Amino acid sequence: MSIEIPEKYRHLFENANFGSLGTVRPDDTVQVSPMWFEYDGETLRFTHTTKRAKYRNLQRNPSMSLAVMDPDKPVHYAEARGRLIEVVPDPTGAFYDQLHRRYGGEGMIPPDAADRVILVMSIEKVNGQ
Amino acid sequence: MSIEIPEKYRHLFENANFGSLGTVRPDDTVQVSPMWFEYDGETLRFTHTTKRAKYRNLQRNPSMSLAVMDPDKPVHYAEARGRLIEVVPDPTGAFYDQLHRRYGGEGMIPPDAADRVILVMSIEKVNGQ
Repeated sequence: MSIEIPEKYRHLFENANFGSLGTVRPDDTVQVSPMWFEYDGETLRFTHTTKRAKYRNLQRNPSMSLAVMDPDKPVHYAEARGRLIEVVPDPTGAFYDQLHRRYGGEGMIPPDAADRVILVMSIEKVNGQ
Repeated sequence: MSIEIPEKYRHLFENANFGSLGTVRPDDTVQVSPMWFEYDGETLRFTHTTKRAKYRNLQRNPSMSLAVMDPDKPVHYAEARGRLIEVVPDPTGAFYDQLHRRYGGEGMIPPDAADRVILVMSIEKVNGQ
């Protein structure tokens, strides 16, 4: 279901850059927010909770788009488009802890661990410059 | 129609940061792309052309959302939500030239100046952290 990220954009997703994740709200308006993520070679994975707006948005419309800019040269960027294909419960917050380390922290179990989930996004198209 | 950007977020929009602009495609999927912009104290203004996807998206669904991260500390960010309220023709590319300078360039009239427009976005809500 997912395509491979073209090599010229892959470093944007492999490095610990912040992404800007777009989703569509129930009223058909758009939401964009910065997100940590991990690219596992096939899908993009985010830590989130079942209590927040993006989770509700995705229940109605599974479309997701992640734009990542090169922090050293932001005109170089890629947008990965896809959709929510799986929600994996993460009740110990282990994936949050893993991303916290990926983004330079020391690891941390979040206070809302009980509600934590992993959002798994397919990659159906990648464009950029 | 627009609200003021709260002071704690205003520097994100006043500085020449890249924004991530979300729009909704005609098939109800989401698009996010990096954009130059200018905050004039009331609206957000972007240079674009009438030939490109975002312009077509906005004809059907005027919703726009711009997320801007602090490049030095990306957990500090703001999302401005609003909609397209005006399209101003820019056939000489003057606004592109202005943004090119704002973002550290020497100014430039783009080759597609004839199709250039200024997208004017209202600011209806701002949140962030």
